[in-house]
Amino acid sequence: MHKSPSVTLLAGGVGGARLAHGLAGALAQPEDLTVVGNTGDDDVIYGLHVSPDLDTVMYTLAGIADPQAGWGVAGDTTATLETLGRLGVPTWFRVGDQDFATHIARTARLRAGEPLSEVTDALRAALGVRSRLLPMSDQPVATRIETAEGTLDFQEYFVARRHRDPVRAVTFDGVDEAAPAPGVLDAIYSADVLVLAPSNPFVSIAPILAVPGVQDALTTTQARRVGVSPIVGGRAIKGPAAAMLEAMGHEVSALGVARLWADILDVLAIDSVDAHLAPAIEELGLRPLVTGTVMGDQLDRERLARELIA
Amino acid sequence: MHKSPSVTLLAGGVGGARLAHGLAGALAQPEDLTVVGNTGDDDVIYGLHVSPDLDTVMYTLAGIADPQAGWGVAGDTTATLETLGRLGVPTWFRVGDQDFATHIARTARLRAGEPLSEVTDALRAALGVRSRLLPMSDQPVATRIETAEGTLDFQEYFVARRHRDPVRAVTFDGVDEAAPAPGVLDAIYSADVLVLAPSNPFVSIAPILAVPGVQDALTTTQARRVGVSPIVGGRAIKGPAAAMLEAMGHEVSALGVARLWADILDVLAIDSVDAHLAPAIEELGLRPLVTGTVMGDQLDRERLARELIA
Repeated sequence: MHKSPSVTLLAGGVGGARLAHGLAGALAQPEDLTVVGNTGDDDVIYGLHVSPDLDTVMYTLAGIADPQAGWGVAGDTTATLETLGRLGVPTWFRVGDQDFATHIARTARLRAGEPLSEVTDALRAALGVRSRLLPMSDQPVATRIETAEGTLDFQEYFVARRHRDPVRAVTFDGVDEAAPAPGVLDAIYSADVLVLAPSNPFVSIAPILAVPGVQDALTTTQARRVGVSPIVGGRAIKGPAAAMLEAMGHEVSALGVARLWADILDVLAIDSVDAHLAPAIEELGLRPLVTGTVMGDQLDRERLARELIA
Repeated sequence: MHKSPSVTLLAGGVGGARLAHGLAGALAQPEDLTVVGNTGDDDVIYGLHVSPDLDTVMYTLAGIADPQAGWGVAGDTTATLETLGRLGVPTWFRVGDQDFATHIARTARLRAGEPLSEVTDALRAALGVRSRLLPMSDQPVATRIETAEGTLDFQEYFVARRHRDPVRAVTFDGVDEAAPAPGVLDAIYSADVLVLAPSNPFVSIAPILAVPGVQDALTTTQARRVGVSPIVGGRAIKGPAAAMLEAMGHEVSALGVARLWADILDVLAIDSVDAHLAPAIEELGLRPLVTGTVMGDQLDRERLARELIA
């Protein structure tokens, strides 16, 4: 390309954040990256509006994310959380003191009537993040997990019960009344490259695709559409993606992912250990890109990012 | 008295909290003390419901109050507040990390529909405080300060502008629609001794008296009614009480306080340095109790408490 490409990334939490970090570094300037973040995991915790996926992307791009956990702020303390525990509040949802500031500031602005997209942009800017970060929608969409124990709120399923329940189905409450946040459709249409992060297909990418207008935009955009399989060697890099594929009757492999995303991608990046799946992926009409997809340090993230946008 | 007396204390912040601490120690058991706290200073700060006076009493009774400031939690850290600052939020209202937990827990419960009196009781119990702590009302009452700069919210006047503006008048927004919180009138009627803390007459005691029914209860209760002058040697122990007396045309002395409270007290405790005012106080129909009223350590607080309830 003659000009520096612009990239739009659809992302969930940790995997999406790491790829965002790689893309921000690989592009001519971080401003060429727009991240559309999943807000289906958003919830009111301790009376505060938490946006776990947006925060994970924001902290990672700001260079302050906890490198071990992937979420939260590196070196954060827990005085507030410990005191909440002493006050009798159940503290299964871990929030550090610095992280609390994000939730407090966000909640105050939302209660004052600002849409989530504006609040997110202000927080991003305050942390010095130069890439754009958009919530998928300004309207509330709540991912619900149907299990043998009944329908669970996402954070209850994911954090409190440590995603141990087999998942029968995933639904997105409120999504029919939701609209893409300002800038989301533009970012999909105007991008040179559209990337689906190696995030959970069911609870990170599917909520974004479920927002009315997003799937249409993905099928009609002129952008080259590149996905990264979150399944490597038949296992998820992180979280319950593999267990969900299996529980919902899909093949637990990069090929299973390819079948889910075949209609909206041109290219699917799969890890070298899955090279044998490339012919079957090609038969689906997708071009397989066989490379190292497991992201370690920043060099690794940028190397993968460069291959995706090449 | 044959049985241990029960005491009800009307209190503002630091002065009220210290006397509450003394009373809780001086009584046969801390449960014999009920504190009715001013909530006219309550505000929404950082999107959270803060109750500065209730918290100061609660932390002091729990033995965790900062001994220097008188408010806040001893040894508290400020990671959340500093991060709010980095996120662009003005942080003139200082809140420590442990203190934030109180505001977060309170706000979440209020938003879930619990009345402030129940929330306060739960927080008190969680901190191991055995004396009863009642907000003056479950309805919002907002103390407003009229100054040459216009009408200011209390925290704006008191914290942000460091109570430097001469006060023309004090009003209590919402007080006409407010009712005493459950237990408040009972606590005034059933007490053996009713104590007015050495708190600011205009912004700590007056809001409590302004709640419909409270002043009537004070004039008709059989309790012995004992006040402690917040003015010693013509100066306030803490805060703007002296400046307010002067600005609103009252004598800046224990006698000025006696005139304000003459109708609702039987006894006014004044400091030994003000002994010369005793005859003039007696002429108002009040019995002066001349003693050391400046509270230092816990021994000091309990000594004063014992004299008040003797």
